[in-house]
Amino acid sequence: MSEQSRIHSLVARFGASADRLVVPSGDDAAVVKPAGAVSVTSIDAVVEGVHFELPAWPLAAVGRKAVAAALSDLAAMGASAGEVYVAAGLPKDLSEAEFDALCDGIAAAADACGAGVAGGDLSSASELWLSVTVVGYAAGENAVVTRAGAQPGDAVVVTGVLGGSVRALELIGDGADPSDPRLAKQFAPIPRFAAGAALAAHGATAMIDISDGLARDAGQLAAAGSAQLSIELELIPLAEGIEDAASAAASGEEYELLATLPQGQVESASTAVAETGTTLTVIGRVTEGSGVDLLDVDGSRVEVRGFDHFD
Amino acid sequence: MSEQSRIHSLVARFGASADRLVVPSGDDAAVVKPAGAVSVTSIDAVVEGVHFELPAWPLAAVGRKAVAAALSDLAAMGASAGEVYVAAGLPKDLSEAEFDALCDGIAAAADACGAGVAGGDLSSASELWLSVTVVGYAAGENAVVTRAGAQPGDAVVVTGVLGGSVRALELIGDGADPSDPRLAKQFAPIPRFAAGAALAAHGATAMIDISDGLARDAGQLAAAGSAQLSIELELIPLAEGIEDAASAAASGEEYELLATLPQGQVESASTAVAETGTTLTVIGRVTEGSGVDLLDVDGSRVEVRGFDHFD
Repeated sequence: MSEQSRIHSLVARFGASADRLVVPSGDDAAVVKPAGAVSVTSIDAVVEGVHFELPAWPLAAVGRKAVAAALSDLAAMGASAGEVYVAAGLPKDLSEAEFDALCDGIAAAADACGAGVAGGDLSSASELWLSVTVVGYAAGENAVVTRAGAQPGDAVVVTGVLGGSVRALELIGDGADPSDPRLAKQFAPIPRFAAGAALAAHGATAMIDISDGLARDAGQLAAAGSAQLSIELELIPLAEGIEDAASAAASGEEYELLATLPQGQVESASTAVAETGTTLTVIGRVTEGSGVDLLDVDGSRVEVRGFDHFD
Repeated sequence: MSEQSRIHSLVARFGASADRLVVPSGDDAAVVKPAGAVSVTSIDAVVEGVHFELPAWPLAAVGRKAVAAALSDLAAMGASAGEVYVAAGLPKDLSEAEFDALCDGIAAAADACGAGVAGGDLSSASELWLSVTVVGYAAGENAVVTRAGAQPGDAVVVTGVLGGSVRALELIGDGADPSDPRLAKQFAPIPRFAAGAALAAHGATAMIDISDGLARDAGQLAAAGSAQLSIELELIPLAEGIEDAASAAASGEEYELLATLPQGQVESASTAVAETGTTLTVIGRVTEGSGVDLLDVDGSRVEVRGFDHFD
């Protein structure tokens, strides 16, 4: 199948953005009517041997993870999901069945968020990689929640539970069955669009998705907001089977949302997030200062390293 | 330098889109106020060993070519240039100086078109690749010129001169000095934004940029428009030093614009394109039928194969 046919087969599978898509891929470029006053755009790449290993990763999981990871950045702004554009480097020995599985994963991730694939480009390469650009929308520039804005006195909150992602990586490394549901945090992560929108609507002052580990991403909010985040380890909500809060605080690629929120908004935000099917947990507070304090139950500071891929 | 610092250094070099850019890269995503009622988006990747060879290509040329090739797709819609998002796979042995040169090339290509780099992602990889997503704008869906729309009776027109790109590839293969100006068609291609806008404003019915060769790209206009394009080889404007029109018709990556235009608009469009600093040449006409007829001076049909990279 030619590059053109492969790209068309990929785009033809998607209809989610049909309303916005005036001219679909196949022309020189896709033409889209923006679904909001501001566009929110992010680009994210995954590379074989860096972000995933073959054959340990099913091709569908590679596609799904790549697109979900990119979309998660939009959820972290409180934006909606719009279009997905995928460039891929394909090893010459990638079979049609493997290419189809890759597309299935891309489709599943986009569909799960109401996004549509609007364009693509394929090339041969010596290792598999995907570069995913995602475009979302918000009602205006004040409707997006950036990393900056944490205010002393705010609560530090996190969606869902943490630690499952690093556990999943360990299980994949140990050769676990790909159908083991504990691998889903890596193979089929779910960006928190509904929770992100709920947090944005309920006054979140700063927000980020957890990709480099809670500790390191909290550091990003602290740096962007010129504030200090004090987080109590014992308050971190742990995934089933995870007992070490410090390990959960270092676990990257969780794609949960970490936000700061005025104390008076915590209750209503928690209710709104619960209605999206996940939980919101207060894990600390914002103070004057800089950086992140991770505090053990006795009040002592804990050092937690961030999450790095093995590059 | 960390990935984050490298990305920031890349984004910090650009200010062109500052007006539109509400939140620059460095947050989870870039937030942009669209500069038109519709957004026009394309994604394009270049891979070492497929689209360019190292060390024959200076790193600045790799960056410049990758971004210019992607932007050319927007010019071919009659759209303006907006934001550029770059993901890159970097070999571990890429030096800081080489990375800087790559960024210089990206900067030069974006600057030349009034675009701004608004986001990026870097990863290690075993070979160098760049994936470039470009976003442009148009006043509305009727303001963009797609590949479909060629009408029987229309003139077939092309900007600039052809054949220089394949000649440049040959010279690069022969180890020519990178400063040889004849290599510029590959090392520093110029997307035809002003000419594309002029053609759109003067009633172009269909338009494409020449990336796969005039003959093959004319085939795209014919297929999209359900019409036939009859092109006379002797009318094709040839680059200096190029004598074989058939070779010019097969030369890819020219990034000139091929368009169809009502006959009554040819004169005004030519004047408008001339004001942008290049030429517009009538090379044939649109008829009922399908496909492309490339006609020699005696009226006989000529077979011209398209341009393919060596993958």
